Amino acid sequence: MTADEPVADLAKRRGLFFPADEAYGGAAGFYAYGPRGADLKRRIEESWRRRFVVREGHELVDSPTVIPEPVFEASGHLDGFDDALIACPECDAHHRADHLVEDAGVVADAEDLRPAALEDLVAEHDVRCPTCGERLAGQPVEAFDLMFETRAGPGDGRPAYLRPETAQGTLVEFPRLKTYARNQLPFGVAQIGRGYRNEINPRKAIVRVRELTMAELQQFYDPERAAPPLSAVADVPLRLLPVERQDEDADGDVDEDDAREPIETTVAEAVDRDVVANPWLAYYLGVARAWLDRVGVDPDRLRFRQHREDELAHYAVECWDAEAEVSVGPTSEDADRETADEEWIELAGIADREDHDLANHAAHSNDDFTLFREYDEPRHVERPTVDPDMSEIGPRFGERADAVVDALERLAVEDPDAFETEADAADGDDAVTIEVDGEPHEIPAEWVNVRVAERIERGEHVRPHVVEPAFGVDRVLYATVVHSLRRDEVDGDPRTVLSLPPEIAPTPVAVFPLTDDNAERARDLVDRLRRRGVDAAYDDSGSIGRRYRRQDEVGTPVCVTLDERTPADDAATLRDRDSTEQVRVPLDDVPDLVSRLRAGETTFDSLRAD
Amino acid sequence: MTADEPVADLAKRRGLFFPADEAYGGAAGFYAYGPRGADLKRRIEESWRRRFVVREGHELVDSPTVIPEPVFEASGHLDGFDDALIACPECDAHHRADHLVEDAGVVADAEDLRPAALEDLVAEHDVRCPTCGERLAGQPVEAFDLMFETRAGPGDGRPAYLRPETAQGTLVEFPRLKTYARNQLPFGVAQIGRGYRNEINPRKAIVRVRELTMAELQQFYDPERAAPPLSAVADVPLRLLPVERQDEDADGDVDEDDAREPIETTVAEAVDRDVVANPWLAYYLGVARAWLDRVGVDPDRLRFRQHREDELAHYAVECWDAEAEVSVGPTSEDADRETADEEWIELAGIADREDHDLANHAAHSNDDFTLFREYDEPRHVERPTVDPDMSEIGPRFGERADAVVDALERLAVEDPDAFETEADAADGDDAVTIEVDGEPHEIPAEWVNVRVAERIERGEHVRPHVVEPAFGVDRVLYATVVHSLRRDEVDGDPRTVLSLPPEIAPTPVAVFPLTDDNAERARDLVDRLRRRGVDAAYDDSGSIGRRYRRQDEVGTPVCVTLDERTPADDAATLRDRDSTEQVRVPLDDVPDLVSRLRAGETTFDSLRAD
Repeated sequence: MTADEPVADLAKRRGLFFPADEAYGGAAGFYAYGPRGADLKRRIEESWRRRFVVREGHELVDSPTVIPEPVFEASGHLDGFDDALIACPECDAHHRADHLVEDAGVVADAEDLRPAALEDLVAEHDVRCPTCGERLAGQPVEAFDLMFETRAGPGDGRPAYLRPETAQGTLVEFPRLKTYARNQLPFGVAQIGRGYRNEINPRKAIVRVRELTMAELQQFYDPERAAPPLSAVADVPLRLLPVERQDEDADGDVDEDDAREPIETTVAEAVDRDVVANPWLAYYLGVARAWLDRVGVDPDRLRFRQHREDELAHYAVECWDAEAEVSVGPTSEDADRETADEEWIELAGIADREDHDLANHAAHSNDDFTLFREYDEPRHVERPTVDPDMSEIGPRFGERADAVVDALERLAVEDPDAFETEADAADGDDAVTIEVDGEPHEIPAEWVNVRVAERIERGEHVRPHVVEPAFGVDRVLYATVVHSLRRDEVDGDPRTVLSLPPEIAPTPVAVFPLTDDNAERARDLVDRLRRRGVDAAYDDSGSIGRRYRRQDEVGTPVCVTLDERTPADDAATLRDRDSTEQVRVPLDDVPDLVSRLRAGETTFDSLRAD
Repeated sequence: MTADEPVADLAKRRGLFFPADEAYGGAAGFYAYGPRGADLKRRIEESWRRRFVVREGHELVDSPTVIPEPVFEASGHLDGFDDALIACPECDAHHRADHLVEDAGVVADAEDLRPAALEDLVAEHDVRCPTCGERLAGQPVEAFDLMFETRAGPGDGRPAYLRPETAQGTLVEFPRLKTYARNQLPFGVAQIGRGYRNEINPRKAIVRVRELTMAELQQFYDPERAAPPLSAVADVPLRLLPVERQDEDADGDVDEDDAREPIETTVAEAVDRDVVANPWLAYYLGVARAWLDRVGVDPDRLRFRQHREDELAHYAVECWDAEAEVSVGPTSEDADRETADEEWIELAGIADREDHDLANHAAHSNDDFTLFREYDEPRHVERPTVDPDMSEIGPRFGERADAVVDALERLAVEDPDAFETEADAADGDDAVTIEVDGEPHEIPAEWVNVRVAERIERGEHVRPHVVEPAFGVDRVLYATVVHSLRRDEVDGDPRTVLSLPPEIAPTPVAVFPLTDDNAERARDLVDRLRRRGVDAAYDDSGSIGRRYRRQDEVGTPVCVTLDERTPADDAATLRDRDSTEQVRVPLDDVPDLVSRLRAGETTFDSLRAD
């Protein structure tokens, strides 16, 4: 039994997630979300939207997942988005060469080694194929592009790629998005949607998949102006693992006991002490920490790890990953099992992309990726202007006269002194040299009247910087499930319970008629709840204990039972998932109570106290 | 100015939708949703989910958009999902041959003509290239597969396609989904997500795009058992255009005046009179009609048109399209413009897929696509069973003995009389002939003891049928925008207003501080709204009139102004989008009032009456 199996088993049995297309033998790296998982994922997305979009006053957009090739030429993904692939000569299995080298204990982190270096390490340490055991020494290591390629349009079409991140779809639309923000920085634009990465070795269920759901925010800001609203998250606690705590020793091993111990700090302190260089980054570390807590990621199993220089993506200058520890520990059933090794997965990357992407798109396209920044005060600037004597220049240069004037104007801006004549044009001998169509020409200075005009400039064009909090929704869901999974006993029987926060629990409430004469009443209640938009479950099958177990396993916070007393007292029993405590309430109050419990406007304890 | 331009112009200007990747010259058939459009689309999806999933007690799932090739071999999409492509020999433009023939007035509907027939018509009627005018006669017409192809996995990978519908992702998981429904019919499983169709000629903005958003429900049911809950929608009015009202005359022209007049009826009547053959289909026509009305599709510009036999998809036996009329009529600005021609687009297809897909997946995979249906009463059935004499068969057939026994068992079920011997085995000469590995063998009847055993059978395995309501979310959004777009005058000034239902309006409320000393108060109000999850807009720029116009154009139902009286009376003015009437309310009541207006729990008129 692998450490993940309790999660995978529960996920399949209760409809959270499962490998897709299993009727056809499966499709490696593709997972489907069943009814409970799809609802859980949708609620996590909605919670993210509320926190990162609505509450921040940012905007959501929704752009295509299929993007033409020139966009990725500009963004650098066509060249820089690949993994090291090695194929087994015996069984033809494909592996990530860096992972093999890491798994062999050769180096702790091989992700950024070049193919030639990986080939050397594979040979030197006699790395074998994990599938069949064959020696891999001598096999080539190749850079394998992780983007899915397709072609759009009739005939052979034009090359296009499934986006590996939502970000490019947002960034490439900046010239239009800035107008919706009325050309004012800062503003933020988010997307929630699919991303695609043709992973060489998908693994760990929904953790490393080829089709994933991402929630990404592009925070555009003026690096010389507005600061983030740090005060809103100043006191949020952070566990930070900066680069200097990840030092490897001479063998490439990290000293686990000491160096990897994170710093316990706060957002404000991390900025003050310069642990996090960019305050916008620190701001979103705080927002991320608070939000992950809210959706059920255990703060004690969460840390923010800074990327070392060699692992930074091609677009980032500073990046911190939110990482969760997701090993599945011993359960009450097999308590003597050894505690699983720690296993950290990345939930989010919060990156300072500076103006990397906008600069690239500006260089590769004809659009304007800048904004106009007004000076605090209008500035008086001196700009040389040229007034050439066309009665001389026209006849001499003919159809090249315009090009000559352009060249004179450029010269006037670059080197206005060139037009200054000896003794101020007394002898008329002075000339300036310009180049037109590659040929030098001498123009008498007296033909050109250069004036220095004073202009008032209101501001200048600036390219915004971008800080990007980018979440893997599937991984947040996975961590939430692992951290919510508990085994306990109820009346001596073991049970599995998913203690999900009510806000994201896939089923807010389940209704059980315990007697046949309550069936219609229970159906009416379910109908009332559903008309309000509440996803109420109805279950009339099996013992009450089994019905509770089914709901406990998918984290339903409240169950409502209609029993033999209900026809007489028009009341029902509400039962709390975590404490299993019960309270009797009027049937008519149930819809409101369910809504209020979910919204956190009341608690089960306070209901019992009433 | 084309008829669509007011919509396209508004959509770009106010951030509803716009062509994607325009910085790189655009990508035909790909559109991006801006801030207001992404919110509008999300709210339409959420409304659909509430109606078709939550309220029906169905389930939502979320499966990959990349699906391996064998699934589409089984579903028939690899062969049957294509359009007729013709290329211009002069300018290399690609066109849909059927559309060219239709546009030339040759036949009214050419979609289902075969390539050879289209080639003949192109030649016969001298059809020209719409791009350059070149003759297309003699050019080949080819079936062009509309699925985007890609490859998944390292190296060359395996062929896979971007799904052209969400349906296959749901249907292929039926063996697991049935267990979540505890093997009980009927149940419904929905998906909302991307679909991809590599259209030859994308057109009309988001109406015919290559990447779209679909909302599809697979209603699984037992055709011999459970009926749909028709009473819930019995009285819903329907405008139906059945096949017999679409008859073409000898020239292939439809007589527009008469034959195309739809029948005005109700769901119950349509079933009673057999206009709609499948009652499950009629049920979802009713649900669709009610829901489209709710999200702002004008019932007077909506009809349900039945597919003729020649246009049915390969998987359907009966299908009705929800169609909306989306021409943009004269506005107050150019009232003398002629009324645009009627233009109908498909918003949804509601199809009876019978067991087409499940049967195909069962045939092509090893999984079980049936459910067990219990008989009302257990049945006593007689089943022949075989007890062969292995002491004879074993030595004679060696390792083929098992195959011989299997063949005998099959024969006993198919033709038990074959084992009856003359005079009941008196002479021992009788034999039965079986085939093993293609070879016939004679087996003495006396080696085989056939008994007819009586068994009690509780039920049988049945393959569910599927009725599928499939909505194009982008098109519903488009129709909603067109039907909500009005031009009127306010105080003598013309205005454009999008009278969207409050439930789907992208911005529920906008807050305007009219004086500087209200800025902080207004920001506080916005913050309170946002903390509740309400997407409140804040606008402090320009005249009050301009601020109203901006919100009117994106359909914001309520605006709140804080004016010079607010610091004294702690009250604000609520202004209704459609009537432009105003009411003064306490500032503290604003968040609750906004929520209640949106939920339909109160109206603007009743606020004014208070």
